[in-house]
Amino acid sequence: MHTENPRVVFKERPGTGIPVPGEHVVFERSHSIDLDGVPLNGGFLTKTLMLSPEPFMRERMRDLCIPSYSTHAVLGDPLVSFGLVVVLRSEKEGINPGDHLYGLTPWEVYTVQPYIHGRSKYDPAEAPDYTYDVDALELQIVPDPKGAFPWSRYFSVLGAPGLTAFCGFEGCADAKAGETIYVSSGASAVGSVVIQLAKAKGLKVIASAGADSKVEYMRALGADVAFNYKTTPIVEVLREHGPLDIYWDNVGGKTVEAAIEYSRVHARLIMCGCISEYAIGPEERYGIKNTGLIFKKRLRVEGFLAPELAPRLAPRFYAEMPVLVAEGKITAKEHITEGLENGPAAMAAVLKEGGNEAAGKPVILVATE
Amino acid sequence: MHTENPRVVFKERPGTGIPVPGEHVVFERSHSIDLDGVPLNGGFLTKTLMLSPEPFMRERMRDLCIPSYSTHAVLGDPLVSFGLVVVLRSEKEGINPGDHLYGLTPWEVYTVQPYIHGRSKYDPAEAPDYTYDVDALELQIVPDPKGAFPWSRYFSVLGAPGLTAFCGFEGCADAKAGETIYVSSGASAVGSVVIQLAKAKGLKVIASAGADSKVEYMRALGADVAFNYKTTPIVEVLREHGPLDIYWDNVGGKTVEAAIEYSRVHARLIMCGCISEYAIGPEERYGIKNTGLIFKKRLRVEGFLAPELAPRLAPRFYAEMPVLVAEGKITAKEHITEGLENGPAAMAAVLKEGGNEAAGKPVILVATE
Repeated sequence: MHTENPRVVFKERPGTGIPVPGEHVVFERSHSIDLDGVPLNGGFLTKTLMLSPEPFMRERMRDLCIPSYSTHAVLGDPLVSFGLVVVLRSEKEGINPGDHLYGLTPWEVYTVQPYIHGRSKYDPAEAPDYTYDVDALELQIVPDPKGAFPWSRYFSVLGAPGLTAFCGFEGCADAKAGETIYVSSGASAVGSVVIQLAKAKGLKVIASAGADSKVEYMRALGADVAFNYKTTPIVEVLREHGPLDIYWDNVGGKTVEAAIEYSRVHARLIMCGCISEYAIGPEERYGIKNTGLIFKKRLRVEGFLAPELAPRLAPRFYAEMPVLVAEGKITAKEHITEGLENGPAAMAAVLKEGGNEAAGKPVILVATE
Repeated sequence: MHTENPRVVFKERPGTGIPVPGEHVVFERSHSIDLDGVPLNGGFLTKTLMLSPEPFMRERMRDLCIPSYSTHAVLGDPLVSFGLVVVLRSEKEGINPGDHLYGLTPWEVYTVQPYIHGRSKYDPAEAPDYTYDVDALELQIVPDPKGAFPWSRYFSVLGAPGLTAFCGFEGCADAKAGETIYVSSGASAVGSVVIQLAKAKGLKVIASAGADSKVEYMRALGADVAFNYKTTPIVEVLREHGPLDIYWDNVGGKTVEAAIEYSRVHARLIMCGCISEYAIGPEERYGIKNTGLIFKKRLRVEGFLAPELAPRLAPRFYAEMPVLVAEGKITAKEHITEGLENGPAAMAAVLKEGGNEAAGKPVILVATE
């Protein structure tokens, strides 16, 4: 018997701008799958429960001629992002029906795993040396929270964003109690964890976001100074509440310039993302004019990628973080959108200036068990 | 008996642009000194043998409202730079007539040391936290090279530039044999030492300067690829001979953008100076548009100041470098200008696009012993 297997397909590269639902990214109902009969070839069949629209997916949609740190998304196949799936059938040792797994998975309801069909071809000899083969990230079994926290936490503080925050903060910040950190996109999944890690370490935290609801959220997380950058100029806030010992960058461009300007001597700038630049052309990017201060202030500006620091830091993350979350010492919030058919719009919302209106990591609820 | 004591006085702040000899920086013969009778007050009397026009002096001439890493130069007093002096009379223990000292000293022939008259007022509570009190650097006795090398080496490889190159390279580069480094201003006093340190460590060296004579000089120092950036676009050379594992920046602006573009994953960019920006206004500075690559390529961009690293690295520098120089394993070149009256023009020459025409660290020969 065939069951409908809806999917969200990457239909056309958007060039610049935000991918338009129905044009670049399209929800389709035409596929189906035989849940009982589909061959597993030693793998396992999963049902997708939740999916995560992420800025990095936009970077993967870039034109083929543009190199970057991630491989390209494949046209005609479902989008790929972090997801939570449940196992229906398995031929793989160690994976059993009912197991929940978190990791990269295609935007469709049912999938024979490991998912290799829509993977981008990645030949290290052909790709730029800084390309990270995103598709190499594998699904990992996650334990049932048994009510201590909702499953959706695996998308925020206990998933890739939380690990990213932990790796960058523990690996690059050299944070000391009493120092001041500024976190841009402070209400994002990554930023909200950075705020809490910094507070736990005794730092003064300045945080910005693009909506008043997010400002409230950042305050609730412990930020000492929280502001809406759309209504309050960043430089004004940093002039009053800086100088900075640490800047956590999720944004790029003009925000980095402001952070450099109001950095203290020997400040550390941690470059984690540049959401302001993913959907624009190289020429539209903001030109930073004060990089001379990197030398004059003896700053350290450092980029990192969580999977590279994970071998050293992930064991601590997986040991410490779930406990802190279960105890309520580190909190998180997810913004749930119901239905895979709303996936394309949820994807676009992540990318618009200021991100989603609502605070909380956007998660698409695809199906219940 | 009074002896004429010529000096070069800082007469007027130049705002933007290169200080004009006779206008902003003026040679004067009107002062005199009683060499036998001038009170030493526990200090010592020196005769200036050589002086060093340096880019950092321009930064000190900036308008008072502009903060920076250095204190301001004082109007009406002689310029201050690194110099080599010989002691004529002394009341200070450990300093004897005939001793040679290297360090910060005023642009005049005879000076009662320590020179405090023309020091800028420096109150750490008032100055930005990244200000370094340049005037705090003291004259240090240097040994007679006894013909193993000329005294002028104390201005290049064995002086502040050599120490700067050593501290930055040993402290920030994490250089490994087989890696590729690009050194801008490779014929400068600092750059020429970086080239040799890198070659000694087994690196491939790309180096640029603004004159063909300097290209030849950089090749003689061991640079594998040397080019004149005025006639060959930097990006072309880096595209062909990169990517870079290390970039040594003496220039700032557009050159940094090119280095970021052609950096390998995990490259280190060492920010040592920004000669392209000292004499222009903030608005004229080049805006760097590819800082997003710092995150994507996981780069580390780091500023440093030699005096801050010196407590850790200077002992090795003073132990190793003079031996290497005496053995001819590390070489240097100085470009000597005779006569303090030519000091203002020598100062201006350092600051023009591409620096001096001639290769070699510019040194002003003020007097013989």
